[in-house]
Amino acid sequence: MKPGADETVEVSSRDNTARPTLGLSRGISILDLILRIIAAIGTLASAVAMGTTEQTLPIFSQFIFRAKYNDLPTLTFFVIANSIVCGYLVLFLPLSIFHVIKTSAKISRLILLVFDTVMLALVTAGASAATAIVYLAHEGNSYANWLAICQQFNTFCQRISGSLIGSFGAAVLLVFLIIISAVSIYRL
Amino acid sequence: MKPGADETVEVSSRDNTARPTLGLSRGISILDLILRIIAAIGTLASAVAMGTTEQTLPIFSQFIFRAKYNDLPTLTFFVIANSIVCGYLVLFLPLSIFHVIKTSAKISRLILLVFDTVMLALVTAGASAATAIVYLAHEGNSYANWLAICQQFNTFCQRISGSLIGSFGAAVLLVFLIIISAVSIYRL
Repeated sequence: MKPGADETVEVSSRDNTARPTLGLSRGISILDLILRIIAAIGTLASAVAMGTTEQTLPIFSQFIFRAKYNDLPTLTFFVIANSIVCGYLVLFLPLSIFHVIKTSAKISRLILLVFDTVMLALVTAGASAATAIVYLAHEGNSYANWLAICQQFNTFCQRISGSLIGSFGAAVLLVFLIIISAVSIYRL
Repeated sequence: MKPGADETVEVSSRDNTARPTLGLSRGISILDLILRIIAAIGTLASAVAMGTTEQTLPIFSQFIFRAKYNDLPTLTFFVIANSIVCGYLVLFLPLSIFHVIKTSAKISRLILLVFDTVMLALVTAGASAATAIVYLAHEGNSYANWLAICQQFNTFCQRISGSLIGSFGAAVLLVFLIIISAVSIYRL
């Protein structure tokens, strides 16, 4: 077996097909970069929107009712999960830019895919857990005798409901990012 | 360009490296099949354990207190999500068996990876949302004035807590299945 000779043959046979598809590969890499930036903005917006939510109800003179995101541990988890995913997306942006420049990089795409999968699980966990609590805040549950708190804390509920959007958007984008990485690895 | 000639060269150059790694490829495919079966059992166990949970407390003569999983919409979602993922895993088992026989199949692995990613998001969403509610049932929340119901519904709480394990196990296995598919595509 002559590895050197084989390599030459493979390179020349790849060169024939490489040129027409180079533009497509670059296009996919640019799409990956754009989706990654949007997902990072989504998670950041979610974390900030949830993390700064606070409402005080000075209805009674003696007792001041106050609602804050960290009164509920699930919402704290939501902020932490979104912050971690946002940090990951920003930290790994250079790798995505590297893929636009060097479209033939394969192992680094596999590494991105693995991390993206773990981050998808994390952001989905945060968003779903928070949704369960937000739903309960809106609707309450008569069986468990949990009352809806949104009638009193209207602004608080609007904010925490809105902050879910960015997180779910990021989860959907991460699914696409995983598929993009897989297709890129498949094509190389 | 002679595509026929190129193909022959590529096949012969691949044959040189294919034989030593065939065993590894088959091993990975068998691991994929085993993990898929365990994940299917996990989601099935979770769905059944949650779906059959019911506890009646005949403490008072006039009122009979009853707790059932479908009193809480989030737990109903948990059962539905786990059932869908279990159905998917069982339906796609033949494809996984096909990969053990034909280790060089590439496009079908990509299809599996895409579906696995969507199913990972679904099972994680179900498990996390249910966890948020189960946590609330155990701990309650003094700020929102939601009382812990587990002091009364002890058996109910044990069952719904236990049913989360299978679901989270399946989520972890799906992460590994996605990585396995990606590595297989990478190696082909």
